[in-house]
Amino acid sequence: MESSYIADRTSDGGMNRLTLNDDDKKVREWFIDQVKNYGCTVTVDKIGNIFAIRPGKNNALPPIGLGSHLDTQPAGGKYDGIVGVLSALEVLKTLHDNNVETYAPIAVIDWTNEEGARFSPAMMGSGVWAGVFTPEWAYSRTDLKGAKFGEELERIGFKGDTPVSYEANKLSAHFEVHIEQGPVLQAENKPVAVVVGVQAMSWFSVELRGREQHCGTTPMDSRADTLLTAAQMIVAINAVALATPGGLASVAVINATPQAINTLASHVQFNIDVRARDDALLALLEAEIAEKCEEIAAAAQVKIEVWDRFWTSPRTTFDETMVSMVRQSASDGGFAFREIQSGAGHDSVYTAKRVPTAMIFIRCKDGISHNPAEYSTPEDIAAGAEVLLGAVLRYDAYLASQSK
Amino acid sequence: MESSYIADRTSDGGMNRLTLNDDDKKVREWFIDQVKNYGCTVTVDKIGNIFAIRPGKNNALPPIGLGSHLDTQPAGGKYDGIVGVLSALEVLKTLHDNNVETYAPIAVIDWTNEEGARFSPAMMGSGVWAGVFTPEWAYSRTDLKGAKFGEELERIGFKGDTPVSYEANKLSAHFEVHIEQGPVLQAENKPVAVVVGVQAMSWFSVELRGREQHCGTTPMDSRADTLLTAAQMIVAINAVALATPGGLASVAVINATPQAINTLASHVQFNIDVRARDDALLALLEAEIAEKCEEIAAAAQVKIEVWDRFWTSPRTTFDETMVSMVRQSASDGGFAFREIQSGAGHDSVYTAKRVPTAMIFIRCKDGISHNPAEYSTPEDIAAGAEVLLGAVLRYDAYLASQSK
Repeated sequence: MESSYIADRTSDGGMNRLTLNDDDKKVREWFIDQVKNYGCTVTVDKIGNIFAIRPGKNNALPPIGLGSHLDTQPAGGKYDGIVGVLSALEVLKTLHDNNVETYAPIAVIDWTNEEGARFSPAMMGSGVWAGVFTPEWAYSRTDLKGAKFGEELERIGFKGDTPVSYEANKLSAHFEVHIEQGPVLQAENKPVAVVVGVQAMSWFSVELRGREQHCGTTPMDSRADTLLTAAQMIVAINAVALATPGGLASVAVINATPQAINTLASHVQFNIDVRARDDALLALLEAEIAEKCEEIAAAAQVKIEVWDRFWTSPRTTFDETMVSMVRQSASDGGFAFREIQSGAGHDSVYTAKRVPTAMIFIRCKDGISHNPAEYSTPEDIAAGAEVLLGAVLRYDAYLASQSK
Repeated sequence: MESSYIADRTSDGGMNRLTLNDDDKKVREWFIDQVKNYGCTVTVDKIGNIFAIRPGKNNALPPIGLGSHLDTQPAGGKYDGIVGVLSALEVLKTLHDNNVETYAPIAVIDWTNEEGARFSPAMMGSGVWAGVFTPEWAYSRTDLKGAKFGEELERIGFKGDTPVSYEANKLSAHFEVHIEQGPVLQAENKPVAVVVGVQAMSWFSVELRGREQHCGTTPMDSRADTLLTAAQMIVAINAVALATPGGLASVAVINATPQAINTLASHVQFNIDVRARDDALLALLEAEIAEKCEEIAAAAQVKIEVWDRFWTSPRTTFDETMVSMVRQSASDGGFAFREIQSGAGHDSVYTAKRVPTAMIFIRCKDGISHNPAEYSTPEDIAAGAEVLLGAVLRYDAYLASQSK
């Protein structure tokens, strides 16, 4: 399906469709072309979220949203987020081709900047829609080259007129299909999962200050070696998470100054990604990591100048009615499935703050994502789309019954 | 002295006079203006080394070189290298003001790119002069922004005509004054040191390859986390050096890819600076570091793609006649001194391969260098210059006696 669009692939078969780059502009234009084939009206809000709305019987009702994202990591794959939007388009196409008139309108949504790889934080478009961030704050975010989100949004022509707001631009619900991004479904040989919620997570920026010293003349025992200290912290952060079932902690970004081979670094910045099964465990993990890093800094005569938890998202529990409809749809479709908590954040985390939300995961090869090797079979993708269609029709019938 | 030139200081009082940048051009022009006051002819060789030659009685003899460097680290100080050139200028001025005619000519030298901070490796200008590197190879070296050394040398107008060669552009000897860059003289309350040699050293570039994985969904125990592996190596490299008296090992440069907060790094590059009191200990240290890093990589399922010892310099032992003349000069001057082996590389390491060479160290505050806090007192700088003058005059007399 959707074979008319050939993505700009990277040489390794992956994607580099960073938020608001030229590939993002191109895929957005392709998305709008597609949905117009299915009798949709398109609105773009002030943060670039695209809503393709197919009318129903009762257009006084807010649409049922089917959304995900089309942006990728710098060296991402072709499935993370993209499968969710394509599954929603497949539902749209199926309703259209079969002349099915739903009770509520349907909105297929491309949320802006889910990855947060170019402009931090992640899930920005859905976050602004949910009122978690202001549009002005989002516009002010810059990438590593200093480009502003707001200026890039205007550059690619996707700063729309529709207010970015769950109140001014309502949805009745939000469904999202996504690759699992983990190894569980493959291990259990199941094509799909009913997602009951999303783990708690937080992001930190840490800055350390030591002293520039000559690598050839400064005795090993009288150094304030900032990069060594950061390395000790990275090792300790990993050890804390390894010892905490249900918890994860990762350091994937590091910047040392002055980057001279024979001069010890005097300043190091790194980020920490911390996640846990629930909010209490997240707090525990954060506290243990902070304690260990303070001990290491003190022993090293290196100062922790910045310890900034610049983003956090508590555990999300999805709407039981929505989840039950996904469960029924998977079960009636005859698909082997399990219930699962998502390890990754998704736009559904933010929609869940404002409207009933549920997710469907599909199996992905070796649990790999954020990597060109990311892969799901056509059969599993079809299974996810079929479960999505069934869940949407069930929820649509539920809305009809409610308004009787 | 030399107060006519005000260096472009950084806001913290340091210097950012990286090789071949506009500040380097400016200080070179200042240097040439200065030496012309002292009856010198100036030649610039094809790598940008500047020779200011003051004639002697016997100009058939190659000049006695008094050299050091005027480039600095990215966040360097105002003494490392610079004191050596200023001391040589002070000797020149003293000979000039007192109408002293030496037997051999005197050459005050500004060697190009001693620091190697912008264009690796260090001591490039003296290295090409000594035949350790070819000019073509030096021209091809690039900085982090991709600028070529050869193009930058032409840009600032210092690609001269004089051949870069110890044979075509001879010296009789090379003396160098330098700040100690270590804490020993301050600890022993001595203004100067007689340098007997320079420790062995080598530089490595290491590249690791792991796998990009999602920080939120990849279990802690099934990761190929490249940055974690690099951190474990940095900690291990430090531990090996701590356990090896007479040895040093440092990691000060690191680059991770793709630098996305929620995607584990798949590629990390870092450098290692290894030094030891002698060549055998250096080899032992290098072997232990390699062994530890191989163990760590194997345990982490991360591949060492590159392990490149791209530069090495064996232990240097300075010329005994030259060293004895520095010793006599310090002793006759009534200065408390000690003998010392240099921990840092200097241009004298390369001149020593081709001509009799000796160095004089002066005390620096807390042993700090490669840092804006770098400092030596005017009294200690004057002591170094006085010892240099005495040693040069002694060696000049020695040359006269030899040619009788």
